[in-house]
Formats: sequence, structure tokens, C-alpha cells
Amino acid sequence: MKILCDRKELVEAVLNIQRAVSSKSSIPALEGILLQTKGSDLFLCGYDLEMGMTTTLPAKVEQAGSVVLSARLFGDIVRRLPGDDVSLSVDEKNVASILSGASEFSIAGIPAEEYPELPSVSGETSIEVPNGILKSMIRQTLFAVSESDMKPVHTGTLFELSENRLCLISVDGYRLAVREEPIACDQDTSFVVPGKTLSEVLKLLPDNEENLALSIGRRHILFQIGSYTLISRLLEGDFLDYRAAIPASHTTEILVKTRTFIESVERVSLLITDRLKSPLRCVFDDNRIQLSCSTAIGRASDELEAQSTGGTIEMGFNNRYLLDALRNTECDEVKIQLSGALSPMKVVPKDGGSFLFLVLPVRLKSGV
Amino acid sequence: MKILCDRKELVEAVLNIQRAVSSKSSIPALEGILLQTKGSDLFLCGYDLEMGMTTTLPAKVEQAGSVVLSARLFGDIVRRLPGDDVSLSVDEKNVASILSGASEFSIAGIPAEEYPELPSVSGETSIEVPNGILKSMIRQTLFAVSESDMKPVHTGTLFELSENRLCLISVDGYRLAVREEPIACDQDTSFVVPGKTLSEVLKLLPDNEENLALSIGRRHILFQIGSYTLISRLLEGDFLDYRAAIPASHTTEILVKTRTFIESVERVSLLITDRLKSPLRCVFDDNRIQLSCSTAIGRASDELEAQSTGGTIEMGFNNRYLLDALRNTECDEVKIQLSGALSPMKVVPKDGGSFLFLVLPVRLKSGV
Repeated sequence: MKILCDRKELVEAVLNIQRAVSSKSSIPALEGILLQTKGSDLFLCGYDLEMGMTTTLPAKVEQAGSVVLSARLFGDIVRRLPGDDVSLSVDEKNVASILSGASEFSIAGIPAEEYPELPSVSGETSIEVPNGILKSMIRQTLFAVSESDMKPVHTGTLFELSENRLCLISVDGYRLAVREEPIACDQDTSFVVPGKTLSEVLKLLPDNEENLALSIGRRHILFQIGSYTLISRLLEGDFLDYRAAIPASHTTEILVKTRTFIESVERVSLLITDRLKSPLRCVFDDNRIQLSCSTAIGRASDELEAQSTGGTIEMGFNNRYLLDALRNTECDEVKIQLSGALSPMKVVPKDGGSFLFLVLPVRLKSGV
Repeated sequence: MKILCDRKELVEAVLNIQRAVSSKSSIPALEGILLQTKGSDLFLCGYDLEMGMTTTLPAKVEQAGSVVLSARLFGDIVRRLPGDDVSLSVDEKNVASILSGASEFSIAGIPAEEYPELPSVSGETSIEVPNGILKSMIRQTLFAVSESDMKPVHTGTLFELSENRLCLISVDGYRLAVREEPIACDQDTSFVVPGKTLSEVLKLLPDNEENLALSIGRRHILFQIGSYTLISRLLEGDFLDYRAAIPASHTTEILVKTRTFIESVERVSLLITDRLKSPLRCVFDDNRIQLSCSTAIGRASDELEAQSTGGTIEMGFNNRYLLDALRNTECDEVKIQLSGALSPMKVVPKDGGSFLFLVLPVRLKSGV
């Protein structure tokens, strides 16, 4: 193998592909990046058996071939090379020579034959979504994905495609996040994408209105984002019937400035630590919200203005879950809908219904 | 105790004083900040038995008193308070109430009586140095302070005051850094300040031409930097006779662009890890420097231009020590003076003699 390519293009590709590479694997080749000539392109691939990322970049191919190079080392080297171009040649013993300017590196590679094959996705369903929209949808639901392996299917986000609408749903037993957008599709389907895959998709997605393409197979999904292809397995299992979990009505509704509410919750949360957990007490009163918290460290109270309709409700929350929901609204003002001290809090936009977050309350000790 | 003060001033003071507080101490009061009314000022103090930092800020004192509050918690609280002012009151049980805007915190304090007294410095010698100059002097010598407790006096920097010149010297057995400046003083003296103290002095020092004052006692030193006072013990023991360690002459001199040299060393160093140590091989040749390195990972070589006079010398270095010296030159170009493969490398400015760094070579295996 012998190629010449642009250093900047190679650096960008390697830094992205690196993220899909296992830092520790029982298969040594999986700690590397597969480099392969494909016509007049250089093909790069990172894979950790759950998710694979590939891309190509133009190269002057003098001799076709392939090799697997340590992702960390190869990334460190190309980032620091001094020249505009990089020449990479690999001999029959898989020793790679990397040349750029007056710098030369010689490092041992692994034969490409030892690199596992990526799954192929037989695209049964395909949709196109603008980059910026999918980015916002993932961002607003990823926080509620379960971190526990108790119910593996909930470590992913449910994608529901029906009646030309795409809906993303995450749930972890304590909170729920739903985000929907109109998206043209000719087939209704649903599937669950691992949270880890979505956080990589988020990093690759630019904030523009160009489309990315999703191809959904029986067990895998493929995201085509610009010159990058991301293939991931899908999660199997019964996802929560989330519609049944959303309260149909409410008795109290509060309109509140998101930033002010977040800052008050953050302040009162200063007394809560991993060792000293305590619920945050919230009193949704006449046009104001009172927050308080008491732990072995001390007591804290705070108050903020809000516009409320309906009766006063006092309820307890896990401060982190409340904060996650508020921070992910991405709105200046939000509506909070309540139907009792032990019913979930519903957080929705001031106008429209693009997202809906539920936060389950914590039972407060009476009289405290 | 009951006071009212400006929140921004309090935040700045607490964030600085926090740095002098032990994160873990067998004396609980030392994990806190001492707050004390002094006339119409609030006095704050942090101390870890080696170094103490104090400051004062204007306050409306309604009731004199004192308390010790957890440095971490108090810092977190004041940083997030919503109002322009902060009211702090402490009751007879040492419970502190902190009020600002609609926020109220109540946290337990420790009686000020449990706080150890700071050492007093009977200033036998006093000097004044412009802030910016001392900052640069500390920065250019601190890197060579020993991290090993083998010879405790070398974990500090030697300050030598003689003939109206201040000279700072650090040494760790592998490298040496000397930096000097003309400073008016009426008494010659020398003392060793702990590296940890100097790194705090560095953070407090602004980059201007105003003077700070140093008072040197028998066992302690006091830095007066603006409204902050920093008191530290001095280190005792026999400091290396550094003058004897500096080669008097050289056979080869190289003028080199610092940034280019650093980048080449960084590149070749990519093959050196904590597990795979290997010397960096440098050939100072006719108007060029060749670098190379070989470890189990592979081989790397690099080359850069330089202006040289004298013969070719090949020598080995610890890459980290070479980098530390080059990075701390703070010059675009430096002169490197050599007198043989096993003599220390001397790094000096292109013009003048404000600093001098020595880096000891590593013996190279012959024929490799």
C-alpha cells in the first residue's frame, strides 16, 4: 500500500473515526483504524462491534492495499505532522511508514485480514431528515436515556415513524422525554437506537438544513451524514408504552422563565451531594415557586416569580432530574403542568407541542 | 457576627483564599475559611499549616464576630447567590445564615477559636519587586523544582539577593533553571521558597508594573500582593552550589527557532510513553538538528534548520526535560551551547543573560 493525501483532511477523518474505536478490546485490531485504498480514495473505518464509523477521502493511490494502525498513535502522529501532505506506505510485514515534511515515522501495523467485517444494512426503510432537526431531536431526548442495564432496551431512544411524523422517546423510569417533528416517510415503523450511538451521531451532525439519510434494517441502522457512515445495531425488547404514562389532564399550570428556575434549583441543590441525598421541596404557589432543601449540611430556600393558574401544589423532586428536564427545554419560557403531589410533572413549550418531558416526583416526608 | 458586603468582591476573595485551604485536614477548621470582622472590614483567611493567605474587603459590620465556614461549600454558595449584596450573620451556636436576593442558606460553622494562628513574620529584610517581573522570574524557574522529597530543599526555589540583583534558582538533579534581574535591596540574603507557595504567588500576581513587597523572616516569608497577604514557611537545608554546576565554556553553539524545535521534539516524543521510555537522540550538525527516537512502538525521525558554529555533537536527552526547558524560554529564538556528548546542554537567550537553563544529557547506547 502506498498513498499520498492531504494532511488536514486526514486529521479530520482520523479524529472522527477514532471515536468509534474501542480503547480496550480483546481483538487487538479493534483498537486500530482500518485504512484501505478504494479506487482513488482512502477508506477509514473504526468499529467496536456495536457501532462502526467509516469515511473516505481523496488520495493519490500509488499502490492499493490496506492496514490497521493504532487509532491513538496514528491520530497523535497525523495531528502533529508538519507538512501539507502525508505519504503513507505499508510494506509486506505491515510496517507503516508515515512521511510529512522532514518527519518520518515507522510503526507496526496489523494485517487488515484480522479486522472484523462491519454488518451490512439491507435498507428496508429509508428516510431523510434535515441535519439540524435531527440534532435538536436527539439532544432533547438523549438526557432521559437509562444508564442502568436493568432494562437494556431503555438504554436507547425509541424512534417512531408514523403518519409522516418522526417521534423520539427516551425513558429511564424516573423521567420521560418525547420530541416530535413532521418528516416525510412512506412507511410506518419503529426501532430503538442505543444512546451511545446517538451521542456519536450528535457529534457528527452539523447544524445545517441539509439532509442526512437513515436506512433501517432488521437489526441495524445506518446513518449517512455527509461523507461519514455510521452503522449501529438496534436494541431489542419491549419499550415502555409511553403514551399511557403521560397524564391526560392537569389541575395547575405554571409559566416560568427557564433560566431563573434553573438557577434557583442549582442554588438550593448545593446542599445535596452524592452522600447526602434529599428531595428538593417545591411549592407551586400563587404566581411564585418556593424551593427548599434540607440536608445534614444545612438548609437552603429560594423563591422565584411565575404565572400560575390552578391550586397550590407542594411536591418533592430529585434535583438532578428536574435540572436535566429544564436544561433540555432549549426555551426561554416553559409551561409546567401538574395534577397532584404524586403525579408526574409535565414540562412543555410555552407554544406548540414539539417536546414533552415528564419528571416523576419524590414522596416528601410529611411535616418536614 | 452580622455583616453586609458586596457579592462580587466576596466571590473574588473567597475563590482566591480557597486555594490556600487544605482539601483534607486532620484539623476540621483548616478545611474552612476563617471569616472575621476587623473594624469595618471583613477579614478572610485560608491556611494549610505550610502556607496561609489572607485578605480584607469593605463590609457594613452590624455586629463584630468571627466564624469558620467550609471553604468548598461557602465558595459554591457565594458564587451562585442572585443578589448584588450578601448578608452574613452567625448566631451563638455558630450557625451561619447567608442571605442574598430571595435566597437563604443556613449552614453550620466552626468556632473561630478552633482555627490555628498564622505565623508572624518579623521582617528582617524587605524588598519590593514589580509584579510582572517577579511573575516572569517565577514562571521561568518553577518548572525545574524537584518533585521528589529525596532532598526537600530542592522542592523549592532559591532566592539570592546580592549586589542589587535578585536571582532565582531551581534544580532537580536533571536540570537547572536560573533567572536574574536587577532589584534594589540594601541587604544581601538568600532563602528557599517552597514551589507550592510560588505556584500560588504566580496565580495571585497581576501582569503589571506595580510593586509587591516581600518581607523575609528567619523561618517565614510574607508576600504582600495588592490586598492579599501570603505567608509561607521557608525550606531549610543546603541548596546545590549551582555556580559550580554550570559549564564555563562551550565548543558548539546553535541558534534555533524555539517553536520549531519544540514541535519537532513533541513529534518525535510521540513514541515515548511512561511504559516505553527511551532517550531522544539529537545530532547537532552543520546548520541543522536531527532528532530521532526508537521504542517498541516504532521509529521516528525529524530534522530542523539551525545556525551552528563549532563541531557536530550527538547526544541523548529525556524528552520531557528538553521540552520543559524550551517551553520556558519565552523567546522566539534561543542559543544552545554544548561542550560534549556527556556535558549538560546550556539554553540561554539569543541576547542578554536573563535566564540560563541546564539540561543533563542521557547516555546513548552506542551503535544504536
